Amino acid sequence: MEKARIGVTGLAVMGRNLARNLARHGHPVAVHNRTSARTKALVEQFGDEGTFLPADTPEEFVASLERPRRLVVMVKAGAPTDAVIEEFAPLLEPGDMIVDGGNAHFADTRRREAALRERGLHFVGAGISGGEEGALHGPSIMPGGSAESYEALGPLLEDISAKVDGDPCCAHVGPDGAGHFVKMVHNGIEYSDMQLIAESYDLLRHAAGLAPAEIAEVFRTWNTGRLESYLIEITAEVLAHTDAATGKPFVDVVLDQAEQKGTGRWTVQTALDLGVPVGGIAEAVFARSVSGHAVLREASRHLPGPTRAKVAGSSFADAVEKALYASKIVAYAQGFHEIQAGSAEYGWNIDAGSMAAIWRGGCIIRAGFLDRIRAAYAADPHTPTLLTDAHFAEAVGDAQDAWREVVATAARIGVPAPGLSTALAYYDSLRADRLPAALTQGQRDYFGAHTYRRTDREGTFHTLWGGDRTEVDA
Amino acid sequence: MEKARIGVTGLAVMGRNLARNLARHGHPVAVHNRTSARTKALVEQFGDEGTFLPADTPEEFVASLERPRRLVVMVKAGAPTDAVIEEFAPLLEPGDMIVDGGNAHFADTRRREAALRERGLHFVGAGISGGEEGALHGPSIMPGGSAESYEALGPLLEDISAKVDGDPCCAHVGPDGAGHFVKMVHNGIEYSDMQLIAESYDLLRHAAGLAPAEIAEVFRTWNTGRLESYLIEITAEVLAHTDAATGKPFVDVVLDQAEQKGTGRWTVQTALDLGVPVGGIAEAVFARSVSGHAVLREASRHLPGPTRAKVAGSSFADAVEKALYASKIVAYAQGFHEIQAGSAEYGWNIDAGSMAAIWRGGCIIRAGFLDRIRAAYAADPHTPTLLTDAHFAEAVGDAQDAWREVVATAARIGVPAPGLSTALAYYDSLRADRLPAALTQGQRDYFGAHTYRRTDREGTFHTLWGGDRTEVDA
Repeated sequence: MEKARIGVTGLAVMGRNLARNLARHGHPVAVHNRTSARTKALVEQFGDEGTFLPADTPEEFVASLERPRRLVVMVKAGAPTDAVIEEFAPLLEPGDMIVDGGNAHFADTRRREAALRERGLHFVGAGISGGEEGALHGPSIMPGGSAESYEALGPLLEDISAKVDGDPCCAHVGPDGAGHFVKMVHNGIEYSDMQLIAESYDLLRHAAGLAPAEIAEVFRTWNTGRLESYLIEITAEVLAHTDAATGKPFVDVVLDQAEQKGTGRWTVQTALDLGVPVGGIAEAVFARSVSGHAVLREASRHLPGPTRAKVAGSSFADAVEKALYASKIVAYAQGFHEIQAGSAEYGWNIDAGSMAAIWRGGCIIRAGFLDRIRAAYAADPHTPTLLTDAHFAEAVGDAQDAWREVVATAARIGVPAPGLSTALAYYDSLRADRLPAALTQGQRDYFGAHTYRRTDREGTFHTLWGGDRTEVDA
Repeated sequence: MEKARIGVTGLAVMGRNLARNLARHGHPVAVHNRTSARTKALVEQFGDEGTFLPADTPEEFVASLERPRRLVVMVKAGAPTDAVIEEFAPLLEPGDMIVDGGNAHFADTRRREAALRERGLHFVGAGISGGEEGALHGPSIMPGGSAESYEALGPLLEDISAKVDGDPCCAHVGPDGAGHFVKMVHNGIEYSDMQLIAESYDLLRHAAGLAPAEIAEVFRTWNTGRLESYLIEITAEVLAHTDAATGKPFVDVVLDQAEQKGTGRWTVQTALDLGVPVGGIAEAVFARSVSGHAVLREASRHLPGPTRAKVAGSSFADAVEKALYASKIVAYAQGFHEIQAGSAEYGWNIDAGSMAAIWRGGCIIRAGFLDRIRAAYAADPHTPTLLTDAHFAEAVGDAQDAWREVVATAARIGVPAPGLSTALAYYDSLRADRLPAALTQGQRDYFGAHTYRRTDREGTFHTLWGGDRTEVDA
């Protein structure tokens, strides 16, 4: 009997499309679902795309896989994932691999990997980005787990991943939870990128007074330049779309309450644990959450604000492009800072440039821009921040007058631009010769004897604020 | 033998001062420490301040307490707290109380309360603010736990707390972890308040060109007005202080790398879980973390920026006062939003106005301002945000031109003002008629079929972006 090279259990749309992608690439794929109806439907509908080996039971499924077994779990994160692992692990043998292709928290992946390693099994938390279409036509894949498991699994995953200039958008990220960690940060960056686009749209709409169809044209133009990316491309599509029912611009009939599924929040929470400032991602998460607080917004609608005076259209659009590009550099600089901090914290040894490379295709944030990040890390793998890379420093330097003007304009005319503003403040904080953190330390020493260090000599000091205000060694 | 009304175990500076405060108020207090030296030292040094009952062993300590026993634990948060609880709980009897006066995470307090409740004991997580001095002379106390435990404990705690207009700065917050939750948010607000002050100082220094001693005078003046608060007062003290070793302003010899101990971070992480936007607190935490990234800052110091052109001094100082006051209102609005969201999530039924009242004295953020918050909740206990309270709405309305100008100036001249900026963006987001979140939802529907709602009818919809772009019910 022919054995399957790999198996997929959990045949909702993501699992089904991943199985089809594998089959289409000539890999015999075992398919299994808790309820067999989905398995049957898959084979009936798409059986001619390749070799599917349907299995009704876990035992059948496992028996149909060649050794070492590669078993991809595509079920909901959390308890369902644990349940499926517990169902299959006892049926596997040392050296077999369980791949979690869902959106697990990297801490769960670390826990699962350690537990399965003790049982002689490989556990691979693989971030998969690109949605349903990506899963079918080529996603960006970020597999963690052992190097040994990647040897057996990598070629298959690279084969079905997106390709850019012939290079697969899949690379081994690092041990245990590294893959899901990087996928999480990818999503955090996506939040930040989307928020910056939303603010740029809002400014073009309310400051420059352009209509959605006109703004769609602006985005289309931007998409031919350095901002070229999937997100800019679909922004133009969404803005150009007219609602059939009302004849109004589509964006005007959509309820302006953004939703979120959690990975943006995780990215910020994790960054806080790692001590990495990710204001751009945090403001993006908060902006969605503000938008959803309907009661709060309704109560606040009468609060006073300036008249939204219009500014000159076309030169302002150019300024917004610069502000968006500079802020986008900050967003990615913050995200990559978090990746490098996570890598150091957990000993993952992540190749940051390689992450930029595999995000160039397949995933939501795919963009020509990422090739510049890849190049920046190729030039200096240990660059402390992307902002100091020659290309990005020049771009930000060139953009900054416009960036400042756009942020100032937003403040003056009352268009909220928390993402563009925090990006600029981050930039100005990094390059500041002195920060008022010195005052903060002075206050902390005053009210809590938390001590401070000095600029002119080593040591830790405390001033006797309640006494004669002499300084003592602490 | 005389019994003690209450006992304190853990006699580092906070525990020692709390025990002295109790003794000074005429409450016989049992004192115990893991190593007896501290117990002896306390009695030797301060034995004349009241009645101390020193105990060498946990058994002796417990035996010296009147029933129901009130046992205050003042040890480090985390494992040491659990260890002490495990040491004492077996020695206690039903109805006895263990009070944790440390900075525990409210989730730990909830866990401990549930475990001890099962054993018939009360566990009270009590937030205590005011540092060493507060513990001795009157802190602000935020006790959680059961209403029954507060009956036995409240009068004592109220007695030793700070007083404002004769009212104690202590009130029962709510069940289980409510006290530590509110203390956490208190600290988060403190971060935000301090960051806003730091930015205001930085702007006066670098935009208006004032010297630290001159800025001290500005803060002294502010402290006679609506900004009157402990933090503004000590800011003036710190800025007026001259370093004896160098003759330079003290603030210029302090290393500008701010530190943090974790409660600010917890406040933001918890807010993210609760879906509450707290940009002001997040930016404050991130600003401290940016300041501490010395390598990153060193690498970025050459990045281009504008010349820090000076602006007119005295009128700018007035504008900064307005920006600071308006942003401070936002900081507190966000913090109280988090308290109300936490209260709803955990069923704590927290009286927000009462929290403002007990923060008026004893704690780091004590200020006349809090009396206005108390009044706002007295006027409408269900106000969705402090920003819509008549007083605050008027203050923000009056401040907004100056606020916008200060934020715009900071952006233009390159002084980082993430706290002032995010506060303004939050305000403008809340009052916005439409937010670009509609575009975000459109994008999410485009790339992930995440669906959207409409402004003009109920339901959830999806547009067939890859097909003929008709809209379908989702």
